[in-house]
Amino acid sequence: MLRVLSQPADTRLVLLVLDGLGGLPNRSDGLTELEVARTPNLDRLAREGQTGLSQAVGLGITPGSGPGHLALFGYDPLGNNIGRGALSALGLGLDMSNGDLAIRLNFCTLGADGTVLDRRAGRIETSLNQVLVQKLNEIDVPGVDLQFVTESQHRAVLLLRGSELDARVVETDPQAIGVPPRHPDALDPKATHTSGVLAQVLVEIRRVIGSETPANFVLMRGYAVVPELPTLGDLYGLNPVCVATYPMYKGLARAVGMHAIEGLHTLSDQVVVLDDVWGAYDYFFLHVKAPDACGEDGDFDGKVSAIEDVDERLIEIVEHAPDVLVVTGDHSTPSRLGQHSWHPSPCVFWGDTVRPDEISIFGERSCDGGALGVFPAQAIMALMLAHGGRLEKFGA
Amino acid sequence: MLRVLSQPADTRLVLLVLDGLGGLPNRSDGLTELEVARTPNLDRLAREGQTGLSQAVGLGITPGSGPGHLALFGYDPLGNNIGRGALSALGLGLDMSNGDLAIRLNFCTLGADGTVLDRRAGRIETSLNQVLVQKLNEIDVPGVDLQFVTESQHRAVLLLRGSELDARVVETDPQAIGVPPRHPDALDPKATHTSGVLAQVLVEIRRVIGSETPANFVLMRGYAVVPELPTLGDLYGLNPVCVATYPMYKGLARAVGMHAIEGLHTLSDQVVVLDDVWGAYDYFFLHVKAPDACGEDGDFDGKVSAIEDVDERLIEIVEHAPDVLVVTGDHSTPSRLGQHSWHPSPCVFWGDTVRPDEISIFGERSCDGGALGVFPAQAIMALMLAHGGRLEKFGA
Repeated sequence: MLRVLSQPADTRLVLLVLDGLGGLPNRSDGLTELEVARTPNLDRLAREGQTGLSQAVGLGITPGSGPGHLALFGYDPLGNNIGRGALSALGLGLDMSNGDLAIRLNFCTLGADGTVLDRRAGRIETSLNQVLVQKLNEIDVPGVDLQFVTESQHRAVLLLRGSELDARVVETDPQAIGVPPRHPDALDPKATHTSGVLAQVLVEIRRVIGSETPANFVLMRGYAVVPELPTLGDLYGLNPVCVATYPMYKGLARAVGMHAIEGLHTLSDQVVVLDDVWGAYDYFFLHVKAPDACGEDGDFDGKVSAIEDVDERLIEIVEHAPDVLVVTGDHSTPSRLGQHSWHPSPCVFWGDTVRPDEISIFGERSCDGGALGVFPAQAIMALMLAHGGRLEKFGA
Repeated sequence: MLRVLSQPADTRLVLLVLDGLGGLPNRSDGLTELEVARTPNLDRLAREGQTGLSQAVGLGITPGSGPGHLALFGYDPLGNNIGRGALSALGLGLDMSNGDLAIRLNFCTLGADGTVLDRRAGRIETSLNQVLVQKLNEIDVPGVDLQFVTESQHRAVLLLRGSELDARVVETDPQAIGVPPRHPDALDPKATHTSGVLAQVLVEIRRVIGSETPANFVLMRGYAVVPELPTLGDLYGLNPVCVATYPMYKGLARAVGMHAIEGLHTLSDQVVVLDDVWGAYDYFFLHVKAPDACGEDGDFDGKVSAIEDVDERLIEIVEHAPDVLVVTGDHSTPSRLGQHSWHPSPCVFWGDTVRPDEISIFGERSCDGGALGVFPAQAIMALMLAHGGRLEKFGA
């Protein structure tokens, strides 16, 4: 429906994502990372704007980066899941197009009897991985383009480009040792071609690296095609840009039709580049990885600092006078848990047409009481468009 | 499910709609129209009852009057949209029945080459419109009853009554000048008959007013049939009455099976007539247009006064001792925006079985914190029925 209602407007919308923003209280003083952080600028947005807790998928569901961001971009995160292989490929900065199939590979060790001795080939060095990948890239299978890419240690990605590729194939990783790898059988009649291609690829891999040691084969899993998503331009007439440092988020942004600025390495790079591109786009996705990275490392104080760093630079973003500014997370990453979690993410809307609520502090507990309550992250796009004057009235 | 659970009860339910109730803060003092207004009686309802913010369609979606009211009456506003032509016809007080087709007309100026010179015929005077409409009402096309009605200036409505009328026809308004009007082609095989009828009507219109000046033709758009809605009587055994001054809201009420009282012109008329009809009905829809009208005019102070006027007369409504009284808006109309908006509407439930919350002021920010939170307006009917003892237990 948003698509039908969307209308042009000369307004600029900014979505600032602090990856893994939400947290859990520190055991000693009972405060979360965000509650401990000194955030006068985020608090100003909360005081002048409207708050709530955004939730990408549903109560109790921990979102991965794919669904977390698709929801923030306004897509149904359940109906448009991006598989692990595709996320790995995007994370490596590979240019995945619609129809391409990505597969995660583990280099492994097979015994003489063809059973798996080690699913990770003793976690080989990345440098050996690179040597092996170079050999694998000489493989040629008719009717399909193959690209092997090193991830790290025993992990690699295989990107296939061709026609009628289908992800509904048995993963060859048996998830156990002492048994042979599974055969890549088709799980759907439409995947018969892909199954045959992969069987050929595996024969070739065995031929090329079968006498190496310790990594003499690969296990395949996480088959994924990039879903054919309508772009934000198609849907809402937006001209969006991604201002991120990590390849995966640029890849996710490209999957929904954003232009991704390359060559950004720091938060400072990200903030400064806005000066150059402010006039050229109308939707700005700023992604800050540090809070999530610290959360994953269990580094409470590091996450506090990462949030404070963003707060300090926030004023430069606000000075561009966006018509709508939203700050939230794609999911929580409590440093106490050291991983993504299901807790909803503090969210603030700021702009001229935002109806202020009574909240004046940006934090998990304060945003609980905000006007938006716990609300679906997918609605953020609808609200951004509305506040930016980009949605017509529904019905007369 | 409500239909299955509904049971009779000797209770009276009142829905008081302040059209366009919600607003945005005034730039100077940071208060909304409702927050500025002195509303001791609405505040009493909030103190004794339960509050929240109702939302007709969804986050970020600005509802028109049609979906706004259908949601308040308990209907799915997305599945039952009423087209613009039908709303115009209802707004003119025309008696539209199921199967009737309503079309909005613009009188226009065609050049000698048949292209549109002026889509509005220079915004002719309403008096000329009336003269032209009188001529058009002499048109006779077999198999269909035609009724042309003046709206104002260049705008008119055509109501068609006949069998198998279908709105899926190309609008003849080309939305541009220098091109001929479009032909009313069928967009669906089922609309072939209607397409043929309209083509005949257009030939007749050209014959009757083709030599007039400046308005020598019409452009057609906003084709709409009244959706076939089950009535509130069918659904819940209610015997509902509409106490409104504006034709469109009476029309909407009739579309869901309400009796609409005629001859009401002021808020005072509306409040006083309750004395006469209180014993004859069990569901009372009171519609007050003034807050919306002032909001559309950008008249902050006028909207404040309009809300205060309702507050003053509220005591007379309460004196009838309804079992359930709900006060809300169909949408917001912030005077700062001068149009309908997507912001949810303050809502209060009051009655003997309503569980009070901690809110004691009726306003946008206070209702934010109410027990109902931001909730779908469509649920108001379920809650009114429940509080009125009109819903059985679900399951044993």
